[in-house]
Amino acid sequence: MDNERIISPIAYIRTDFPDKFGVPRQSGRVDSLAGEIVFLPEYSAPEAFRGIEEFSHLWLIFDFSLAHREGFSPTVRPPRLGGNTRVGVFASRSPFRPNSIGLSSVKLDGVEFRDGVAVLRVKGADLVDNTPIYDVKPYIPYSDSHPDALGSYSDIHADYSLDVVFPDDLLDIIPESKRRALTDTLSDDPRPSYQEDAEREYVMSFAGFDIGFRVKNKTLTVTSVKKL
Amino acid sequence: MDNERIISPIAYIRTDFPDKFGVPRQSGRVDSLAGEIVFLPEYSAPEAFRGIEEFSHLWLIFDFSLAHREGFSPTVRPPRLGGNTRVGVFASRSPFRPNSIGLSSVKLDGVEFRDGVAVLRVKGADLVDNTPIYDVKPYIPYSDSHPDALGSYSDIHADYSLDVVFPDDLLDIIPESKRRALTDTLSDDPRPSYQEDAEREYVMSFAGFDIGFRVKNKTLTVTSVKKL
Repeated sequence: MDNERIISPIAYIRTDFPDKFGVPRQSGRVDSLAGEIVFLPEYSAPEAFRGIEEFSHLWLIFDFSLAHREGFSPTVRPPRLGGNTRVGVFASRSPFRPNSIGLSSVKLDGVEFRDGVAVLRVKGADLVDNTPIYDVKPYIPYSDSHPDALGSYSDIHADYSLDVVFPDDLLDIIPESKRRALTDTLSDDPRPSYQEDAEREYVMSFAGFDIGFRVKNKTLTVTSVKKL
Repeated sequence: MDNERIISPIAYIRTDFPDKFGVPRQSGRVDSLAGEIVFLPEYSAPEAFRGIEEFSHLWLIFDFSLAHREGFSPTVRPPRLGGNTRVGVFASRSPFRPNSIGLSSVKLDGVEFRDGVAVLRVKGADLVDNTPIYDVKPYIPYSDSHPDALGSYSDIHADYSLDVVFPDDLLDIIPESKRRALTDTLSDDPRPSYQEDAEREYVMSFAGFDIGFRVKNKTLTVTSVKKL
């Protein structure tokens, strides 16, 4: 087809989410989530990053690598609408779209060069571990920030969160540096949709642990922690 | 290479810029600029746009179609830094990047369906006419808007603009509906960089007219208007 383009990863992101379950639904929901963008050697020249630390935020353009599908479905069911209401794919950030390209803003935490490989440390990434990254761009507040923009259903659910009960004996199993990010992720409600089944146990993988939990009303209770 | 992807246009944008010269350097600089995103018939199902009008802003992911280059240059010279200072490509929004993918936010002005083709009317697009569009996503203020983000050199130049002198006899040649967008574009300083040559005449094509102008200090004076 005319104007087809081949795009290739410039980097891969390392995060604490080995699979999709639990990944926050939008970037910036869980600022405490640390990630590392590891560049391919051919894009790791230090000059390519000159000045990047003067920006506080970055855009990531990435592959929804776990959402490749043949064919085009014009509607999707956003989890934040309970999973039963259909909206147009172009009125959603769903990964199931004609070109499965994702867009997320993250905070830049630092730049490092390790054995000839550039690494950007970031916060707030809503990406699965090893997601291919096609581009990194600086966030330009005067053109990218529209605090008064109308966000439809996303506005309604912007403040939604769960209370998290995490028993001390289970929390102790988690390395201290990961605890805040994990509890913040849980409070963002990792369930596939607002399912109301207080008996159901969910299991989310995070940072090398399987975290079991139940949700009743607006309270999430951690029931098990297993090292993988 | 691993994880290469083929992406195909879902739409093309129609704007008043037949070529790169004059296109505002960031989206949203010139809100008055009207554009139309014309979808391919296979992506024009009305359901695909259900709910989109409840969002005020959209992201466009597009091809920098006039900036394809072989090879990777790690630094670029942003016009807003005078064209002589080099910054890393990942610290810039330059079109010359490993994957020549652009990102712009625009205001959504309306949705129409014409002979089976979906058309989104937008404002503030900094794109050349007929640019291929790979994705349209809603702008989600709670995750996309960071008004306090630090924008490095982009902050310094956010308020930069020229005074525009547009003689009445020349302005009268331009259709009234295009005048505001044209003068706003000129005040954004369309010169390739901050060249200081008061004698030089520049010519910018806009909405079917060639606009000649000179710039002295911070004043741009229109010297000719020719219908193409």
